[in-house]
Amino acid sequence: MNFKDIITDCFNQVKGIENEGHLAAYIPELANIDPEKFGVHITTMDQQGFGMGDALEKFSIQSIAKVLSLVLAYKILGKKIWERVDVEPSGNAFNSLLQLEVEHGIPRNPFINAGALVISDILVSELDHPKQDFLEFVRRISNNPNINYCSKIAESEKKVGYRNIALCNFIKSLGNINNEPDEVLDFYFNLCSLEMNCKELSELFLFLANNGCCTYSKEEILTERQSKRINALMQTCGFYDESGEFAFEVGLPGKSGVGGGIVAVHPDQYTIAVWSPKLNKNGNSFKGMKFLEAFTTESKLSIF
Amino acid sequence: MNFKDIITDCFNQVKGIENEGHLAAYIPELANIDPEKFGVHITTMDQQGFGMGDALEKFSIQSIAKVLSLVLAYKILGKKIWERVDVEPSGNAFNSLLQLEVEHGIPRNPFINAGALVISDILVSELDHPKQDFLEFVRRISNNPNINYCSKIAESEKKVGYRNIALCNFIKSLGNINNEPDEVLDFYFNLCSLEMNCKELSELFLFLANNGCCTYSKEEILTERQSKRINALMQTCGFYDESGEFAFEVGLPGKSGVGGGIVAVHPDQYTIAVWSPKLNKNGNSFKGMKFLEAFTTESKLSIF
Amino acid sequence: MNFKDIITDCFNQVKGIENEGHLAAYIPELANIDPEKFGVHITTMDQQGFGMGDALEKFSIQSIAKVLSLVLAYKILGKKIWERVDVEPSGNAFNSLLQLEVEHGIPRNPFINAGALVISDILVSELDHPKQDFLEFVRRISNNPNINYCSKIAESEKKVGYRNIALCNFIKSLGNINNEPDEVLDFYFNLCSLEMNCKELSELFLFLANNGCCTYSKEEILTERQSKRINALMQTCGFYDESGEFAFEVGLPGKSGVGGGIVAVHPDQYTIAVWSPKLNKNGNSFKGMKFLEAFTTESKLSIF
Amino acid sequence: MNFKDIITDCFNQVKGIENEGHLAAYIPELANIDPEKFGVHITTMDQQGFGMGDALEKFSIQSIAKVLSLVLAYKILGKKIWERVDVEPSGNAFNSLLQLEVEHGIPRNPFINAGALVISDILVSELDHPKQDFLEFVRRISNNPNINYCSKIAESEKKVGYRNIALCNFIKSLGNINNEPDEVLDFYFNLCSLEMNCKELSELFLFLANNGCCTYSKEEILTERQSKRINALMQTCGFYDESGEFAFEVGLPGKSGVGGGIVAVHPDQYTIAVWSPKLNKNGNSFKGMKFLEAFTTESKLSIF
Repeated sequence: MNFKDIITDCFNQVKGIENEGHLAAYIPELANIDPEKFGVHITTMDQQGFGMGDALEKFSIQSIAKVLSLVLAYKILGKKIWERVDVEPSGNAFNSLLQLEVEHGIPRNPFINAGALVISDILVSELDHPKQDFLEFVRRISNNPNINYCSKIAESEKKVGYRNIALCNFIKSLGNINNEPDEVLDFYFNLCSLEMNCKELSELFLFLANNGCCTYSKEEILTERQSKRINALMQTCGFYDESGEFAFEVGLPGKSGVGGGIVAVHPDQYTIAVWSPKLNKNGNSFKGMKFLEAFTTESKLSIF
Repeated sequence: MNFKDIITDCFNQVKGIENEGHLAAYIPELANIDPEKFGVHITTMDQQGFGMGDALEKFSIQSIAKVLSLVLAYKILGKKIWERVDVEPSGNAFNSLLQLEVEHGIPRNPFINAGALVISDILVSELDHPKQDFLEFVRRISNNPNINYCSKIAESEKKVGYRNIALCNFIKSLGNINNEPDEVLDFYFNLCSLEMNCKELSELFLFLANNGCCTYSKEEILTERQSKRINALMQTCGFYDESGEFAFEVGLPGKSGVGGGIVAVHPDQYTIAVWSPKLNKNGNSFKGMKFLEAFTTESKLSIF
Repeated sequence: MNFKDIITDCFNQVKGIENEGHLAAYIPELANIDPEKFGVHITTMDQQGFGMGDALEKFSIQSIAKVLSLVLAYKILGKKIWERVDVEPSGNAFNSLLQLEVEHGIPRNPFINAGALVISDILVSELDHPKQDFLEFVRRISNNPNINYCSKIAESEKKVGYRNIALCNFIKSLGNINNEPDEVLDFYFNLCSLEMNCKELSELFLFLANNGCCTYSKEEILTERQSKRINALMQTCGFYDESGEFAFEVGLPGKSGVGGGIVAVHPDQYTIAVWSPKLNKNGNSFKGMKFLEAFTTESKLSIF
Repeated sequence: MNFKDIITDCFNQVKGIENEGHLAAYIPELANIDPEKFGVHITTMDQQGFGMGDALEKFSIQSIAKVLSLVLAYKILGKKIWERVDVEPSGNAFNSLLQLEVEHGIPRNPFINAGALVISDILVSELDHPKQDFLEFVRRISNNPNINYCSKIAESEKKVGYRNIALCNFIKSLGNINNEPDEVLDFYFNLCSLEMNCKELSELFLFLANNGCCTYSKEEILTERQSKRINALMQTCGFYDESGEFAFEVGLPGKSGVGGGIVAVHPDQYTIAVWSPKLNKNGNSFKGMKFLEAFTTESKLSIF
């Protein structure tokens, strides 16, 4: 059975199940999405693609963008980046502030909010025009000039983002943010507002299936070792408090966002993106997780 | 032996000991104070006063002002205030953020920063012109038009006050701040910048020795029961992590600030203010504590 | 109005109110007590006494005994005792294990379980026959040979005391228990099983109203300063998470136990003990607290 | 290059580097081991083996045994086991007790001590003769009657195991231990005292490379899905606070012990065990980690 058949089969199978979970409610722009949207798209190493459902409709990729900011900061600073942020799973979130304090402002990994803020701080320091330069980078590695921030989403999140504001100022007080928190937060909220569709998302992440090398331009975005590091981080830390479950059920490196998107990478083979807005209790797309579980089971690709 | 003799004796005794401790260093304005300043002033119920040393030199009263904002909020809202802030000692500070989270944004007491921010939020809501109205209130109860904020101190603290900014936004995210954090913080930093000398400070707190009634105007600032509540709070929570030690060594309700000031209240008898900028390891004035210990020992006024 | 009248008045007033709260349920022996028991007894400095209700019925004094073990350990070791346990209020209990770990096994005060276990460890080290010697000490200071442990209660608590066993072994692992945990726990469970009636309890604590000197034998149990220290500790830490409230509402040093007993000390005047088994949500006797609030309000004895 | 060449190369390469780190010092039996011991052994799916150095010398496998107890409990109870223990990485250890309390006694995963104690409790409930039955199970799946507990090690650990005693009683107080803590701890300390050499260890784990099926007896120890689950857990949680780093640097599921042993599983291919007693700061064998990094790099077997 080839990818198209497996995807078609899994898509139809998951489409029919009851869509449990809830929409991310904290900003109106995310709460107003049609909860029944469901799209999926695969892109293989030879740039063949196949999509189903709402695969061409843009959505807010939210935390998935944290992989991209990490990639750029890693490309610029190299391994010095690990002096500012750790690479370990974080355990659950209830005590994340305490953990930061005890560990002197070093976040557990770059995918929790604290870590993504530190990475944002690095990019604000290193880039001449942080928001624009970062967007150019994303467009370049995806060979796609149509990727944009959604300023409406960014503004909305800024208005109610008290917890992230608290977090950024707290890390600043602990010495691990160099710029003014307002600047860092502005970058961060824009970062999370990036919009793409499943097709674009799967194409964008293809370099991580290709040892860090862009399949379009042949540019080395990351070294092979760096690319493996990002994949390892996605596998151990990419799904909040469900990372262990995901590592087992899906068995691929991946990253989810509260907009309902998930992207997963099968090194040397393909990337796959799925989108369905309703989230399970751990904040990951309910149908997205179901689809990926079915997909990796049917394609027998679990690494374990 | 009368008060003058005891104060003279204790003052000279403490003046001679080595001035251990350190200046509050986080803002230049506090770090630049002459560390050897030392003043004390008592005011009795019949408005007799006696001071020594630098008793007439103004200093930044800092956290001592938290008693005043609490008094005004309590006067306005009555016991409903305790729905927003608790009255229990806080234990030490390392886990204060965790505690706030577990207790849904209700600070342990009004004298820790979290509690003072919630009280500031109340005043920002209740007062037409928060900063000006509050200042008028302080001037009125002390019968002293010369009390002022120090805008230089307030600005300095705002510039480096990342931890308080974090705290205020964190409580906002937990639902216990109603106004925008920026407004609340502006009020808070001004509050802490109030300047007085020992004479003014002891006169200002006299209504708390007089069951809540202003000795100058005979105005009832607080009811008798409310006044006792404030005193009880100062005794159990007024000295950070040294409240238990202070309750024992001094045995009077009081409040300290990182500017090196301390005010203590002996109900029905007097108020006493002392100032010496170097702080002990718990953040309370080193010589101030030594003086008050000696003073209450010699005057045999411990309640225990 | 004299003490008898005030007590009669307050007793009758509180007797009539609905008895909210619940019995301590974790061991059958405490859960089987008649919940409507209610007794009170005062003893004045000149050894005059007056009791009402079930003042002569014995009950399990539980944590009130922690004051007595502290007194003996303090008498033996002097101020060196404070190297093993601190004197600050503890904040609430949910994070007590974390606090112990961060503070290297030094409990916040001698009245939380961790602190009482460390005090028990001291007595196990210092006494030849810990349980018997301690009981002799209690009998001596109260001039009462009829005070005893209740082995049934001690055994019951030992059987279900997993949390205290955990606590003792945890402190041992942090280096602040010198003896084997089993020995320390055996002493501790017996300590908490002491039985007295209100009359005996008020007589026993009279030395703390008398600057540390036994009114019967004139023996100096503690120095005046040590006695004041114990009183200060009872005031700031004697009522779990309700210490701040109690300091305000009652305004006297005191200590409560989950058996429903409370003892309070008015230095230089009297001790008063009250017993009613139903506990409020903070673990203190519901009617006991109500009685003491009424009593100190009517007798106008609040120190604030 | 075949396995033998790669192992020979990596072994010699790591043998020469300075042996940083320290011996586990908390019990004399572990502290007395010759710190320069270094052995490695691989066993392939077709039961071919190759070892070097001290590959035939027995050592205390310690926490590696937690995989075996988990396997047996999982075999007996099936997925009901996950009601008692979670499958998520734990973050760092400093707040593990707090985490347990907040999460009602459910440990984060079966490889932290709390989780292994709950698994031990399950086996004490389910097995007629827990210690003997478990040992028989281990012997059976490894086709090796020479595997034994080391009672001297077990007794030593019991004598100083205050923290584990605390942990077990704490979980009991939270309701997630059904048997008496003493029984559970006796099983647990024996479990951790199992002794094997690298050859035996690699042979024992071979069924996890073979989808749960014993290569010697063809017995299905676990279903394929269960076997993958165990491997996923080893990859995300097998190396304490270094699991994220290990996932990246080695890229194989594995488990380490404070005795200096590490076993890693390459599904469908081989198992490899390495032993060197000195531990790095995260408690994993210093040379063992270096060897596995070199080995998976040279054999290009990283899954990322």
